[in-house]
Amino acid sequence: MIRIVIIGGGKVANHLIKAFLNTSDVQLIQIYARNIEQVKQYEDQTDLTDNLQKLKKADVYIISVSDDAIEEVSSNVTEKGLVVHTSGTVSMNSLKNAGKKGIFYLLQSFSKDKEVNFDEIPFCLEAENDEDLELLEQLALTIGKKVYHITSEQRSYLHVAAVFVNNFTNHLYSIGNDLCDKYNVPFDVLYPLIKETALKIETLSPKEAQTGPAIRNDNTTIKKHLDVLNKHQQELYKTLTDSIINGKKL
Amino acid sequence: MIRIVIIGGGKVANHLIKAFLNTSDVQLIQIYARNIEQVKQYEDQTDLTDNLQKLKKADVYIISVSDDAIEEVSSNVTEKGLVVHTSGTVSMNSLKNAGKKGIFYLLQSFSKDKEVNFDEIPFCLEAENDEDLELLEQLALTIGKKVYHITSEQRSYLHVAAVFVNNFTNHLYSIGNDLCDKYNVPFDVLYPLIKETALKIETLSPKEAQTGPAIRNDNTTIKKHLDVLNKHQQELYKTLTDSIINGKKL
Repeated sequence: MIRIVIIGGGKVANHLIKAFLNTSDVQLIQIYARNIEQVKQYEDQTDLTDNLQKLKKADVYIISVSDDAIEEVSSNVTEKGLVVHTSGTVSMNSLKNAGKKGIFYLLQSFSKDKEVNFDEIPFCLEAENDEDLELLEQLALTIGKKVYHITSEQRSYLHVAAVFVNNFTNHLYSIGNDLCDKYNVPFDVLYPLIKETALKIETLSPKEAQTGPAIRNDNTTIKKHLDVLNKHQQELYKTLTDSIINGKKL
Repeated sequence: MIRIVIIGGGKVANHLIKAFLNTSDVQLIQIYARNIEQVKQYEDQTDLTDNLQKLKKADVYIISVSDDAIEEVSSNVTEKGLVVHTSGTVSMNSLKNAGKKGIFYLLQSFSKDKEVNFDEIPFCLEAENDEDLELLEQLALTIGKKVYHITSEQRSYLHVAAVFVNNFTNHLYSIGNDLCDKYNVPFDVLYPLIKETALKIETLSPKEAQTGPAIRNDNTTIKKHLDVLNKHQQELYKTLTDSIINGKKL
């Protein structure tokens, strides 16, 4: 039985807490939160503390706090267990605990009130040695199904890639929404297309799946499109169109 | 029973032909294709022709040819039925048949070999009068479930919106794929995030769903990200980041 402590009370911490409380293969023996109110709802199920000096002895400490607090928080973990954090951008070396270090990064976009299907979430794991990596893998598989070994360097690139396919993509949806609103078209007309675009790449690479006026050099349509956009949207349209054309040349 | 003729042998035409041959509520009495080989597979099921002068008498003629061929092809339809085209960008007035005109636009990205679930596809319909619009609605509902009345003007904006949420989004997936390839990370790590991003907007508007370094003015992370990108990717990253920041101000 793996004994763990979760350090943090934010979105990711809360999703992890719920998942680990739901499995009998892991003992979540303690939760630390700076503001204990954030985790008050679990008080009947495990021990809560807002004092880092009172952490219990565990096999794994999962630090899930804001990026810039990881160094300081980890330096306060004096117990011997494996200490991991859940950030996509902070390197493993930023952990300042005396003992063993690792990464337990869940590559997904979490919403506070939306339930998460852990079976679908990739666990990106890293550790200093094989034994610790195996422990993290065991731990991940108690609540999930998809486990990847990703180095801190790879993770830094993966995080940028995630910004492109998540943050930037969502922004394009937002532009689509604005255009629909402006011309009284219900945005839900676009849902099936959005869904199909996202699912298609599981069977066809994005390069192969690329369609539209940019890839086929259809300047008549591109001109028509630019005519209906505002200046801000035009700039985005041009940059993305140029990028598709450049990508084709590569 | 609605009697229809389909004019065209491309991707959309083929998907429509299969769907209409599969329903008993519509009689597909003829298919025209300039190159009859494209539709040869249907020769046992309906009449085929490569001669526009030999079109049969029908209630609806669906023209599904390339955008720049619509004017000429439609001018050759001398029969009296309702003539519609399936393009996202060409206006209804571009139809040059003598009789009634309309639009039968399917807002989806079609792949040649991938089956289509018509129940999920929005049919964007337009006609010159209510009676014709009702006929098109009836026709659409024999193979699909989602029907919208969209004017030619609205359709022109909708088509630009579709470019943003489909073509441009797919291009961002492509950048994500390139980054993964370069650093030996399997691209499938990103599938769940891509899927979640696309599905989330059905419950949360894209503006509400926006996360990431741009929206929270996290310049440390933005700088880290720019450091690992090539010049071409950097330009895209900056434009999209600025656009998110600008959008926040609006």
